[in-house]
Amino acid sequence: MPTLKKYLFTPGPAPVPPEVLLEMARPVIHHRTPEFSKTLDEARARLKPLFGTAQEVLLLASSGTGAMEAAVVNLLAPDEHAVFVNGGKFGERWGKLLTTYGMVPHEVKVEWGRAVRPEQVEDALKQHPEARTMLVQASETSTCAVHPIPAIGEIAKRRGVMLIVDGITSVGVFEQKMDAWGIDALVTGSQKALMLPPGLGMIALSPRAWDKAKSVKTPRFYFDLNRELKAQRDEHTTAWTAAVSLIFGLNKSLELIHAEGLDRVYARHALMAQATREAGLALGLGLIAPETPAPSVTGLLAPNGIDTGKVVKHMRDQLGVSVQGGQDQMKGKLVRIGHMGDVSPFDMLIAVSALEMALKFSGMELRMGAGVAAVQARIGAGV
Amino acid sequence: MPTLKKYLFTPGPAPVPPEVLLEMARPVIHHRTPEFSKTLDEARARLKPLFGTAQEVLLLASSGTGAMEAAVVNLLAPDEHAVFVNGGKFGERWGKLLTTYGMVPHEVKVEWGRAVRPEQVEDALKQHPEARTMLVQASETSTCAVHPIPAIGEIAKRRGVMLIVDGITSVGVFEQKMDAWGIDALVTGSQKALMLPPGLGMIALSPRAWDKAKSVKTPRFYFDLNRELKAQRDEHTTAWTAAVSLIFGLNKSLELIHAEGLDRVYARHALMAQATREAGLALGLGLIAPETPAPSVTGLLAPNGIDTGKVVKHMRDQLGVSVQGGQDQMKGKLVRIGHMGDVSPFDMLIAVSALEMALKFSGMELRMGAGVAAVQARIGAGV
Repeated sequence: MPTLKKYLFTPGPAPVPPEVLLEMARPVIHHRTPEFSKTLDEARARLKPLFGTAQEVLLLASSGTGAMEAAVVNLLAPDEHAVFVNGGKFGERWGKLLTTYGMVPHEVKVEWGRAVRPEQVEDALKQHPEARTMLVQASETSTCAVHPIPAIGEIAKRRGVMLIVDGITSVGVFEQKMDAWGIDALVTGSQKALMLPPGLGMIALSPRAWDKAKSVKTPRFYFDLNRELKAQRDEHTTAWTAAVSLIFGLNKSLELIHAEGLDRVYARHALMAQATREAGLALGLGLIAPETPAPSVTGLLAPNGIDTGKVVKHMRDQLGVSVQGGQDQMKGKLVRIGHMGDVSPFDMLIAVSALEMALKFSGMELRMGAGVAAVQARIGAGV
Repeated sequence: MPTLKKYLFTPGPAPVPPEVLLEMARPVIHHRTPEFSKTLDEARARLKPLFGTAQEVLLLASSGTGAMEAAVVNLLAPDEHAVFVNGGKFGERWGKLLTTYGMVPHEVKVEWGRAVRPEQVEDALKQHPEARTMLVQASETSTCAVHPIPAIGEIAKRRGVMLIVDGITSVGVFEQKMDAWGIDALVTGSQKALMLPPGLGMIALSPRAWDKAKSVKTPRFYFDLNRELKAQRDEHTTAWTAAVSLIFGLNKSLELIHAEGLDRVYARHALMAQATREAGLALGLGLIAPETPAPSVTGLLAPNGIDTGKVVKHMRDQLGVSVQGGQDQMKGKLVRIGHMGDVSPFDMLIAVSALEMALKFSGMELRMGAGVAAVQARIGAGV
């Protein structure tokens, strides 16, 4: 086998366009200068349409988990009750964060690959009326499923409950209407649809979340959003030293995203996801999230006897194509193919082709080329 | 005036070498792969000599302040007493962190520009025997002074007190002997002598600090060092998504640093600092830290009537040379010239030349060229 170029189709980090990589290679500047302020302001403004908000979007020098922590420690007090949806690893993370900081979490457990049903949320809030906050993923990366945020937002609005949403694999992938859906905190990270390396977290709060953040006494310093709001909105810099190069890159990637047009960006993600699902079905694989599949990452289930750990390793080490397996209960059973950011529908030909080869190598009987043909057909037909 | 190239002589961020910028522009890879593990392990091993430790150095996706927070929340419990040295903005930050997380801080106040005297530390520890931890800066960036860490380490050892040191502008600038000096936690950040953009924090703990971190109950999640130790030492990855590109860059910058040789790196910083101080004196400026000046950043005091805010602005906006003014009580009085990382003694000719021009523009009477001549003489003479 000749040397093969490497391809990144993991559920994050996602590929970074060369324009963005080179923008980040610009000489570093100081973070308390008019030049930096201009870039920071521009990037923050360009994020608003992706969040679907008129509110301030703040940048944090952290991974997405840091932004999740910021939401919890700024919006919930110790001993406060909260309902959270646990439909996978990242839902579970909300629970761990709440427990760590002394809140009282009430879990809505959802089978992996399923979306939470709005009635489940409503029931949990009825059962725990002392919970005035709920936390959920817009897209649960570990199970490749989306949760129905608009419906949950309706319930939260009706019951006057604060809604915190992890948008790490939804912002920039499909439309988010933070303000219209009644989301009180929406967080994301840089290394997914925003086409950047990891290292930047982002968060926006609703006016009532800002009110609450003023009174909540949970200790926080690095992730103190009141301090960041003052710094970023009023002083046009960050409270702590800004991740200058990543912010250069963010501004460039947002320029590219808006040049493509948000509608087209979202349509592209939808097409890639649909093509990948259809390829999986054509190969005789199952879908982990057949009813509510995420446009960010597609989860394909291998038949019994095929270890997807080996499939993923073969794809990466022998074919140069990085995807990911399943976590926890899905270890060895699931292949997750990320299609976020700087990825094009034609790239799915590569991902699916390598998948076919690795499945065959792992002993699965399949019709080689069936997945690739499905991708091609879907690209031809459109969404 | 023709267009002028821009120069960065701030006390951080410091300039990043093109080799490092380009290394960070490599395509992103996933952070749970053998390829990433190799880079992470290598970078962490290459950091040890800069810390002067045989212990694990952990990387965090945060600014240096995040690493300071990690030290506090992992090593101190709420209601625990601690002595901290406040000799400037960053000493003050230790106090704010302790207060935020419910500890009982006892301040050793030091005049700006002075080093804490070991007796002051000893007295404070005698006066507050309930304090079993003390926190200090190795180099206080806001006042351009260094504190006597070896002597403080002796006292801490003798009294069995845990010693936490902010090495943000000392690691990579001058020799740090974490293990030999009895430092229990040493933190730093990426954007100073490590020649990287901001966005990576680093921390190493002594064996007894690790013991304490196991029992301390202060809530922490994103900055949970036990979790990071397990991930980085045992699993060769990070607990949360790694700042992959910055870690690529770190490994490259450490390669450059070790190729130059640590002794030569430290001698270069010492020479730049001495040249800059002598230039200031030749121009009739004062030194804010005459007795214990930092090798990382030099603080020069302007005569009465000269507003250094204007000097700094003129240097940046008219001459393309970025330095910084003073903070708080030193606002308008101080010029801080950073000389960390990818800076050479000859570059000080530029910094000092621009300073002379801006001082003259601001109305100071001075002999133009006297500072530049002092830099040249010092380079000729060596340290």
